[in-house]
Amino acid sequence: MLTKIRTPLILVNFKTYSEATGRKAVKLAKTAEKISLETEACIGIAPQYVDIAAIVGAVSIPVFAQHIDPIAPGSFTGHILPESVRETGAIGTLINHSERRLKLADIDAAITRARKSDLLSVVCANNAAVSAAVAALKPNMVAVEPPELIGTGIPVSKAKPEVVSGTVDLVKNIDPDVVILCGAGITEGEDVVAALRLGTEGVLVASGVVKAKDPYKVLLEFAESTTKA
Amino acid sequence: MLTKIRTPLILVNFKTYSEATGRKAVKLAKTAEKISLETEACIGIAPQYVDIAAIVGAVSIPVFAQHIDPIAPGSFTGHILPESVRETGAIGTLINHSERRLKLADIDAAITRARKSDLLSVVCANNAAVSAAVAALKPNMVAVEPPELIGTGIPVSKAKPEVVSGTVDLVKNIDPDVVILCGAGITEGEDVVAALRLGTEGVLVASGVVKAKDPYKVLLEFAESTTKA
Amino acid sequence: MLTKIRTPLILVNFKTYSEATGRKAVKLAKTAEKISLETEACIGIAPQYVDIAAIVGAVSIPVFAQHIDPIAPGSFTGHILPESVRETGAIGTLINHSERRLKLADIDAAITRARKSDLLSVVCANNAAVSAAVAALKPNMVAVEPPELIGTGIPVSKAKPEVVSGTVDLVKNIDPDVVILCGAGITEGEDVVAALRLGTEGVLVASGVVKAKDPYKVLLEFAESTTKA
Amino acid sequence: MLTKIRTPLILVNFKTYSEATGRKAVKLAKTAEKISLETEACIGIAPQYVDIAAIVGAVSIPVFAQHIDPIAPGSFTGHILPESVRETGAIGTLINHSERRLKLADIDAAITRARKSDLLSVVCANNAAVSAAVAALKPNMVAVEPPELIGTGIPVSKAKPEVVSGTVDLVKNIDPDVVILCGAGITEGEDVVAALRLGTEGVLVASGVVKAKDPYKVLLEFAESTTKA
Repeated sequence: MLTKIRTPLILVNFKTYSEATGRKAVKLAKTAEKISLETEACIGIAPQYVDIAAIVGAVSIPVFAQHIDPIAPGSFTGHILPESVRETGAIGTLINHSERRLKLADIDAAITRARKSDLLSVVCANNAAVSAAVAALKPNMVAVEPPELIGTGIPVSKAKPEVVSGTVDLVKNIDPDVVILCGAGITEGEDVVAALRLGTEGVLVASGVVKAKDPYKVLLEFAESTTKA
Repeated sequence: MLTKIRTPLILVNFKTYSEATGRKAVKLAKTAEKISLETEACIGIAPQYVDIAAIVGAVSIPVFAQHIDPIAPGSFTGHILPESVRETGAIGTLINHSERRLKLADIDAAITRARKSDLLSVVCANNAAVSAAVAALKPNMVAVEPPELIGTGIPVSKAKPEVVSGTVDLVKNIDPDVVILCGAGITEGEDVVAALRLGTEGVLVASGVVKAKDPYKVLLEFAESTTKA
Repeated sequence: MLTKIRTPLILVNFKTYSEATGRKAVKLAKTAEKISLETEACIGIAPQYVDIAAIVGAVSIPVFAQHIDPIAPGSFTGHILPESVRETGAIGTLINHSERRLKLADIDAAITRARKSDLLSVVCANNAAVSAAVAALKPNMVAVEPPELIGTGIPVSKAKPEVVSGTVDLVKNIDPDVVILCGAGITEGEDVVAALRLGTEGVLVASGVVKAKDPYKVLLEFAESTTKA
Repeated sequence: MLTKIRTPLILVNFKTYSEATGRKAVKLAKTAEKISLETEACIGIAPQYVDIAAIVGAVSIPVFAQHIDPIAPGSFTGHILPESVRETGAIGTLINHSERRLKLADIDAAITRARKSDLLSVVCANNAAVSAAVAALKPNMVAVEPPELIGTGIPVSKAKPEVVSGTVDLVKNIDPDVVILCGAGITEGEDVVAALRLGTEGVLVASGVVKAKDPYKVLLEFAESTTKA
């Protein structure tokens, strides 16, 4: 995995924000790449499916899908085939984001399909116990995000540090190889520092960057913070 | 609508077939465009989301998404935003394919969102009564496909002509402006002729073309058949 | 259908309210029966599945399930078999309540299964167009309920009379035999009167009765109002 | 938990089989109780929701629901409220059966809701890794059932002993207090013996009993086998 990303990782979820759609998505990707080059921080981005190809063509930072379906090639109209995501140039994928939750057996199958398609799996979880459950399925990364904090600007690393440290304890006990991210409400550099000090190896962010007045400034602050923990 | 497509319409669903993924998807799109130019038949294609951009860049025939979610821009990680599909260059979308069925209220909302995003809506239905229900929601097109015939090579237009003609009767009674397609099991030109003679204005096809030994030959036969009904 | 219910119909949805669970559900059913006998109004009730048997044993008013699955007997652990609901003594069922929405094809199948199991189908819809779509599937009744008004105390019959009258127009045009109810926010007798004057044949109520300080008083007012429209 | 059940446990899932609906469900429950008294084996049953009340009134063996929703009392029309299941007299519930799979976060919430409602949680899983994931959520029991064997008569304990023993190893490593059942294809007493010898503490059975020509005979054989392992 280290050949594709390094930790600490800042993973920016573009969601379906208009600020991160189409040409704006490419522009934001270039901003992320610029900061990555300036700071040497590892910054990944997760744009919408339809924008992956243009972004992969425009930047060299790691690109993730926002979801894959646990399917193989075949009759699955409207679904997300892992192989297609990989062929387009993405190197990983979110799975089970709180806005796109999956059935347990499908998470297990999606992780397996990601592995077979050479995609890194970043599986989201809503609390420490669920993070532990996910870790038992051997994904590459777990991202713990209390859904009640997503989009609030109240950082999980400060408002619920016990969720983050509890996740680190439980996950590492089950599988020390699983990389742990945390997310929800992260809007300042010190939130990133707090997250890393709690034992995570990166953050999953979205509105804090995408909807910032100056995404460059915020993401630069995040990137510089990854060396301060 | 006539500015974007003409009837009879042949709409080719690429599903998540490996034969219609990535570079192979672009190649198949070019084959469809070639036949469209040679025969003047209107041929649309519905590739996977990640392939839309490359295909729109490579051909001039109508491109459809395979599904959209009934959402506006915002926090919908992993979902399909109609505006994004439109910005990528697709001119329409399937909705409620039997492999990606939606809740009734979501079909209604997706049709509305498609209209607002300048996308043609092609809503799939599994029988005549459901087609009538869909017509009450004022989509651009209804595509009736008995799911038990999909992928079988047993053409709906021959095996269940009463489903097709029943759909035509019920739908036109509710809204005569709704264009009616039929699909499932269509593999020969005469299946297309039969479909049009039953009162439809086109066909929705998938494996019959995509998985054919010679897609060019099959699709050419379909295209030429649209003038024989 | 007239052998089982009469219109105007007041249908009380017990939801999963603690005030309408277990022994309290039986008590509330007896209150409804008492008012029904006193006023000769037709009052139906839709309790939780586990409470149907005790309620059917205790009262003689029409009992509905809150949902059925579109299944036949077989391997469907955890699902609601229409035949079982019927054998327990319910005479009908809600389908597609806004809190338990179904896929379109499943609504169609559930209506068919209800009919075959001798259950009246009351299909909920969120607006006039969706009500029309439902009517095309030939249920016994449609209940239009704008979800944004459910539980608010703002009555649909006053706040959105055009939704109610629009539903009546569209549904009767598609199938004049379908009985139309409306619901959401109904808390006073005059809301019932307004609903009936808009052309409906009854109301679907829940919190307005179940969570009232004095359910007897409110439901009596509703029942008496059915003769005033 | 030992106050409610003992191990080895034979848990009979009635599904929505017509042979286990309504009066037939009560009769089958009495058969199970008779065998339980004769053999002193612990036999639990999981009937349909609408039948729980009648069965609890007729027999003294442990009764389980087939599913609960992760909800508290409120506006959840058509859902299964844990408190209602408990008040009806069930002492536990299946969760995440392969025919009623849940999202991961909902399994976690359902286990918590079961605990608060004084219901034993028996969470189903489709393989060893998913069983381990479930164990991290601290249910009372995990039941591993490879879905491809359910209803086949090919016993998991013989056809896939490594799935059963692998589940035992992984689950006990995560939480030794979680009771492990296995199921799928169990039709003979020796399948039960094999399951127990692989380290499980009981079996989850369905068609093997319910659809047997002589359920008494089969279930008696199962019960007697629990003392032979």
